[in-house]
Amino acid sequence: MAAPHGTEDLRTRARHVIFEADTPAGKLFDVVLLVLIIGSVLLVMFESVRQLTEDYGDLLFRLELAVTVLFTIEYAIRIWSAEDRWAYARSFYGVIDLVSILPVYLSLLIPGATSFLMIRALRLLRIFRVFKMARWLGEANFLVTALRASARKISVFLLTVLLVNLIMGAVMYVVEGEASGFDSIFRGVYWSIVTMSTVGFGDITPQTPLGQVLAAALMIMGYSIIAVPTGIVSSEMAMQRRTVEHSGCPACGATDHRGDARHCYNCGVDLQLA
Amino acid sequence: MAAPHGTEDLRTRARHVIFEADTPAGKLFDVVLLVLIIGSVLLVMFESVRQLTEDYGDLLFRLELAVTVLFTIEYAIRIWSAEDRWAYARSFYGVIDLVSILPVYLSLLIPGATSFLMIRALRLLRIFRVFKMARWLGEANFLVTALRASARKISVFLLTVLLVNLIMGAVMYVVEGEASGFDSIFRGVYWSIVTMSTVGFGDITPQTPLGQVLAAALMIMGYSIIAVPTGIVSSEMAMQRRTVEHSGCPACGATDHRGDARHCYNCGVDLQLA
Amino acid sequence: MAAPHGTEDLRTRARHVIFEADTPAGKLFDVVLLVLIIGSVLLVMFESVRQLTEDYGDLLFRLELAVTVLFTIEYAIRIWSAEDRWAYARSFYGVIDLVSILPVYLSLLIPGATSFLMIRALRLLRIFRVFKMARWLGEANFLVTALRASARKISVFLLTVLLVNLIMGAVMYVVEGEASGFDSIFRGVYWSIVTMSTVGFGDITPQTPLGQVLAAALMIMGYSIIAVPTGIVSSEMAMQRRTVEHSGCPACGATDHRGDARHCYNCGVDLQLA
Amino acid sequence: MAAPHGTEDLRTRARHVIFEADTPAGKLFDVVLLVLIIGSVLLVMFESVRQLTEDYGDLLFRLELAVTVLFTIEYAIRIWSAEDRWAYARSFYGVIDLVSILPVYLSLLIPGATSFLMIRALRLLRIFRVFKMARWLGEANFLVTALRASARKISVFLLTVLLVNLIMGAVMYVVEGEASGFDSIFRGVYWSIVTMSTVGFGDITPQTPLGQVLAAALMIMGYSIIAVPTGIVSSEMAMQRRTVEHSGCPACGATDHRGDARHCYNCGVDLQLA
Repeated sequence: MAAPHGTEDLRTRARHVIFEADTPAGKLFDVVLLVLIIGSVLLVMFESVRQLTEDYGDLLFRLELAVTVLFTIEYAIRIWSAEDRWAYARSFYGVIDLVSILPVYLSLLIPGATSFLMIRALRLLRIFRVFKMARWLGEANFLVTALRASARKISVFLLTVLLVNLIMGAVMYVVEGEASGFDSIFRGVYWSIVTMSTVGFGDITPQTPLGQVLAAALMIMGYSIIAVPTGIVSSEMAMQRRTVEHSGCPACGATDHRGDARHCYNCGVDLQLA
Repeated sequence: MAAPHGTEDLRTRARHVIFEADTPAGKLFDVVLLVLIIGSVLLVMFESVRQLTEDYGDLLFRLELAVTVLFTIEYAIRIWSAEDRWAYARSFYGVIDLVSILPVYLSLLIPGATSFLMIRALRLLRIFRVFKMARWLGEANFLVTALRASARKISVFLLTVLLVNLIMGAVMYVVEGEASGFDSIFRGVYWSIVTMSTVGFGDITPQTPLGQVLAAALMIMGYSIIAVPTGIVSSEMAMQRRTVEHSGCPACGATDHRGDARHCYNCGVDLQLA
Repeated sequence: MAAPHGTEDLRTRARHVIFEADTPAGKLFDVVLLVLIIGSVLLVMFESVRQLTEDYGDLLFRLELAVTVLFTIEYAIRIWSAEDRWAYARSFYGVIDLVSILPVYLSLLIPGATSFLMIRALRLLRIFRVFKMARWLGEANFLVTALRASARKISVFLLTVLLVNLIMGAVMYVVEGEASGFDSIFRGVYWSIVTMSTVGFGDITPQTPLGQVLAAALMIMGYSIIAVPTGIVSSEMAMQRRTVEHSGCPACGATDHRGDARHCYNCGVDLQLA
Repeated sequence: MAAPHGTEDLRTRARHVIFEADTPAGKLFDVVLLVLIIGSVLLVMFESVRQLTEDYGDLLFRLELAVTVLFTIEYAIRIWSAEDRWAYARSFYGVIDLVSILPVYLSLLIPGATSFLMIRALRLLRIFRVFKMARWLGEANFLVTALRASARKISVFLLTVLLVNLIMGAVMYVVEGEASGFDSIFRGVYWSIVTMSTVGFGDITPQTPLGQVLAAALMIMGYSIIAVPTGIVSSEMAMQRRTVEHSGCPACGATDHRGDARHCYNCGVDLQLA
């Protein structure tokens, strides 16, 4: 904290602006970066429209280059100003930041390598930076905590659903056969997942009476079984809310106080003083 | 309140009938208006059926005119009797009331401007007046409050869903390509939303094995992730119900006590004695 | 209760067997009736299959006649043994019982009136008798009470959904036009309901980019808004469970006891004695 | 427990490894078996792909034989080491274990009996062994308990849904007729289930205005009625969680106390002092 001047001083300030969001400059940086990321994502999307690449291919390419240069500068500053450079470079966001600039340079070196579009699309992952912005952090944490707490229960549910779909897919393959489009068990399982999740594309549909009865049973099952993950998450969230808002009374041990309680509801002791 | 007679008296009475619903005349006015609005909405719908405009175009036009004249009179009385005329004219309902009569007059002035149908459809918004009727107010407030309280959590959820759809759309565009109808990332994102929300039109479906595996994963994700907004709203509503039902403290007026609280959480007074 | 003999005695006994289910004979009657009803429903369904009427039309007709005669006898006994004959005849089940036998006799009188099938299908409503059987009564009541308690909130929700679909249908009609199958606002509203409820037939799909963006918004809305009725019913049921299982302590007034509690959890008083 | 040596000793050790999972050897056996089961399931799936049987039929057949021999050895050891051999042989898993090896041997004896694939697919049921693994047991129990507790309520719900679909199917058959694909009441009921469960294949869709109005009503009903099973399971799980987390009474052993209980609800003992 003492006498930071010269480059060291600049580096610390850059770190605060780039890695944190609690100063006006940091917030501004985050917003500008977010706009740039969304812009770059839209660019990738526009480039995938054949009509647009034919008419504005040149313009899109220049914008692409401009965005890449800006991201490169940002990446360089991040590396330079990070407290632990290697830790940043290996972190999820560090890798994403690098991966989102490399393909453009590679496509310049290796002409005709337009297939880098696929990798360039990884740039989309940078959008998740938005969740590092302060205003979403609390809410995102709440959801992540609730989901993590119910992850095992949901896994058991999903595993059961997958097994049911495996068996149903095999049965439908045998019952319906190739005539109805069920030309392998894989296709049957795909159809079963499409049906049980109530998506119902309609690209493959059962034609035999028995197949339709089985399909109807699968649909009703999928329709009512959705209650299970919903129940898991609902009860988890209800519990988490209670937990977050209440702590035990230091005098009588009564728990489940309101979040803004000043006195214990049971013995009346002042919770702030106790 | 003293000596209101002449036009002033009439204006106050008109205001009570038109803007409030707690007198028999006010309730009657609301019901008549609601019937008229629904009728005018049906008119717009009928006019959109080619067969009907060909056979009964004249009749529909006259009914349209009649409804518009009635709405014009109503609008004039509202402006005249409103306590703060400018406030009403600028309010949501004031603008809607005006917008729902203008297009018909404009289509009389500018012949052939049938494209005003689009604006006339805005008249549909008048239907929301139904929520100003006393009997729905409490229930609507409950829902709005619960939704508003969970708005931020739901936003985080929807943002995540959108990001997943963005990435999935790009991946499917690369995996499936134009042959299966995924002819741009935009189309891929559209398909991804259609699939994850379990709508599943079936106008675009994956044809390659890898595409179908990814689609199956997306469906199962969409199927189980619906638990998240449901859990948020469920736990919010459960909390709100508890809150609504517990009464205020007789000493300090603090509300939202626990059902079995003996002392006020705010001032510590004994609730049983007070 | 004293000296019931002759027809009066028989009538009372018939009433107990037919209208109640707490005696062995009553239960047996209910089961036999249920089997007959399901059989008669299957008959109507079989008669709707062209192949079967061609091959087994005669057999089906005879079975139909046999079932009708049995139902007629049952109806006659019900009328004869009912405590208040007129009350039974006008009740929901009384009307259904009559309506389910009339069409067959009418089709005998008026030859060629096969269109009575439609009315005969009303016989399906007799199936609801199953809910009068004792074992389902408690559960059915729980569900009905929970739904009735949340009926107004759900009405507000459904009304909002309908208004959104009305507006969305009109907008899609203007945006997409006849080329994509949106050939009237009615069709647009139908499509909007199909989409928002996540059914997604795919018989009408948006073709223009703007239409697809709007459709995507509608889907995501439908996908997250399902949380609202679910939240309403969940919190209602949670409350109902608590209410059903707990009553206040007569000594200290503490509420929320376990359903099988014998002592107050707060003051320890014996709840059975108090 | 005394002096177990020779084959008896080996049998006990084999039993521990095969039937239990709390030793390192037992865990290893479970993992190896699981990999083998998944492999054998994939084999059945691959064999259903025509292209693969044509190109690699021989290889698939040999792998199939190898897996079958391994499963046969496993089955033999299970029979040999089981505490009660007959009890194992008749148990769910015992039957599945046998059924999953028999078809291959039968297809060797009776050439051309490829239709045994259907029975071989039953091998998929072995996958459920995964739930016997310790780590999932608790979670699976939680879900099963919650579902079992709400089974009757969900049955009533499903019965109502089925009745509604029966009636709706008959009505749609009469309203739409064969022209739209509703060529029997069975088909109508199938369509009704497809629609109400929000699957919406789109293979059969209503064409008449009245049919579309009825379909819209059915969809909105299906869309809001999903709240019912969800609410049942949610409130059941919330209750179960509370139950699971509260500890037993030190005096009488009664469990399921309220979180803030001071006295046992059963014997009235002071929980804080005890």
